Amino acid sequence: MNQPAVPAALPIETDALIVGAGPVGLFQAFQLGLLEISCHIVDALPAAGGQCVALYGDKPIYDIPGTPVTSGRDLAQSLLQQVAPFKPQFHFGEQVSTLAREADGRLLLTTSAGKAFLAKTVFIAAGVGAFVPKRIAVEGIAQFEGSSLFYHPDSLDRFAGQTVVVNGGDDIALETAIALTTVAKQVTLVHRRDGFQAEEATVSAMRALVAAGQLAFKVGQPTAFDGKQLQITTPDATTVDLPLDALVACLGISPRLGPIADWGLELERKQVPVDTEKYETRERGVFAVGDINTYPGKKKLIVCGFHEATLAAWGATAIVFPGKAVPLQYTTTSTRLHELLGVAGSR
Amino acid sequence: MNQPAVPAALPIETDALIVGAGPVGLFQAFQLGLLEISCHIVDALPAAGGQCVALYGDKPIYDIPGTPVTSGRDLAQSLLQQVAPFKPQFHFGEQVSTLAREADGRLLLTTSAGKAFLAKTVFIAAGVGAFVPKRIAVEGIAQFEGSSLFYHPDSLDRFAGQTVVVNGGDDIALETAIALTTVAKQVTLVHRRDGFQAEEATVSAMRALVAAGQLAFKVGQPTAFDGKQLQITTPDATTVDLPLDALVACLGISPRLGPIADWGLELERKQVPVDTEKYETRERGVFAVGDINTYPGKKKLIVCGFHEATLAAWGATAIVFPGKAVPLQYTTTSTRLHELLGVAGSR
Repeated sequence: MNQPAVPAALPIETDALIVGAGPVGLFQAFQLGLLEISCHIVDALPAAGGQCVALYGDKPIYDIPGTPVTSGRDLAQSLLQQVAPFKPQFHFGEQVSTLAREADGRLLLTTSAGKAFLAKTVFIAAGVGAFVPKRIAVEGIAQFEGSSLFYHPDSLDRFAGQTVVVNGGDDIALETAIALTTVAKQVTLVHRRDGFQAEEATVSAMRALVAAGQLAFKVGQPTAFDGKQLQITTPDATTVDLPLDALVACLGISPRLGPIADWGLELERKQVPVDTEKYETRERGVFAVGDINTYPGKKKLIVCGFHEATLAAWGATAIVFPGKAVPLQYTTTSTRLHELLGVAGSR
Repeated sequence: MNQPAVPAALPIETDALIVGAGPVGLFQAFQLGLLEISCHIVDALPAAGGQCVALYGDKPIYDIPGTPVTSGRDLAQSLLQQVAPFKPQFHFGEQVSTLAREADGRLLLTTSAGKAFLAKTVFIAAGVGAFVPKRIAVEGIAQFEGSSLFYHPDSLDRFAGQTVVVNGGDDIALETAIALTTVAKQVTLVHRRDGFQAEEATVSAMRALVAAGQLAFKVGQPTAFDGKQLQITTPDATTVDLPLDALVACLGISPRLGPIADWGLELERKQVPVDTEKYETRERGVFAVGDINTYPGKKKLIVCGFHEATLAAWGATAIVFPGKAVPLQYTTTSTRLHELLGVAGSR
């Protein structure tokens, strides 16, 4: 995202480019597939699922219609399976940096990994933006990321036998500190106050470990870090130095709209206004679906994104197949759709 | 539907009345439940599922988001399971006959079974209307329905050992005739021409049975029926009498809007125009969702009905909870929603 875009010599030409591989982006690809519009999908995360997997991968979701209960991860898997017959081409771990209109009406997009796409239509399904862990506000601390500083680590295995300081005061920070007591040699939790924004049971578990001497707890704010020692400043303005092997920070994850803000699209409170006929932005051929869009009555619910993606796919037919009337076909009865879905003759 | 409405002495008072228990009507009840709005559901059919079960109960559906494949029957079952925590009260086998505005702003509805409802909000989720089998156009034939004349029978068991005439030329007619050859004593297929609107394989199977002498086939149109004998008139204007125990007619099922047409709602080509903010008709508190409504961009797809039902439920909050701001909560994180769903503490 901070890298300058270096477009490839030859842009990838496509009927549709989807920005975001969350549930709505995946269903967008499915609906485009039913209409015989092929697509590429770009996502900043390393895998499909978006916010749904990143924020609540294992937590239950009860309001997907026809699915009494699922999880973020299972929903993403089901949608990947559903879209598989259409073979969308995924580009993970890169962010779309720029969007510009070409002279022939197509849209040129470049990514942080240096790729370029020439697309007839673009579907922004980027949720509320890219999710980024909140950083510790200490000068020069960024250089230690990945060596002795870790934000919201996926796994705690690497901290085995180490002296670890955990910074934060929410559920994830406390759960991380608690889990580390069985992995690391020594664990210290640092939070700016002696009070937590976390489940009561988690706070009790943490305080029990502190009482038992298995977890240290210090009230203070990080004020300096050299990779081997964290200096914190306590509420009474004294400083304490904490030697460590690793600093783990869990200060929350917040979404950033990122480069989409610079694409020249109209924005209302960081959301992109669309119509409710095609979920198209004011830019022809640029659709916005899911949590990123806004219109009268908008609710940020996955079920709404599925509908928006459906009508946006239909909106694209006028651009991808100009002058052609595309009939509505049903997956239950259409032999053409059965061929596309790879289920022909399986009735 | 043809019976006069005889309202009960005391109408059932409810926050919401849903007309139609198809997939969209069921999900409407679910979304209302999440918002703590209780409801009653009336459907002309004897069970939940609507068109989805009646027309393609066992056929595959591939475009329900997050469900790569299901059937009409399975989808209805999943939705029934999903809505179960909210205990909607079903009234099957009766049709809402009348809708009128009371002086206090509520809506009075009466059914073909003589019930009356006083509802703060009404959700019309009636699909394209009630599905009715097309009748044979022979005078006086209606009196034999259920004794020797059967339209689209659910089961063929009752025809065991009988002499049966099947009238029709589509897939269902042919499949019914073919299936009857293993049940009935003698089967004759009657169709107005020697050509069928059916799958090639089904036509081949039927012709093979005719060639083998296991099925008779006559070209002609029914012109008289006395309960024991069907008279048909052939293309060369001769008449043939076919003695029988049962006449089974599969002439297609077509939707009829029915009494909804008389409720004083604005109609455009048998559909009810709605806004796209709340999916409300021009009548305050009367919402229309699913195949029965129309708005710019409308596609008759279940996925769209799910979204419409969601925003319609939100639209109802202003009427059911006047002056109260209802916050959007997520089923993943809200403890209140977990209580309502009966999953509290199950994280």
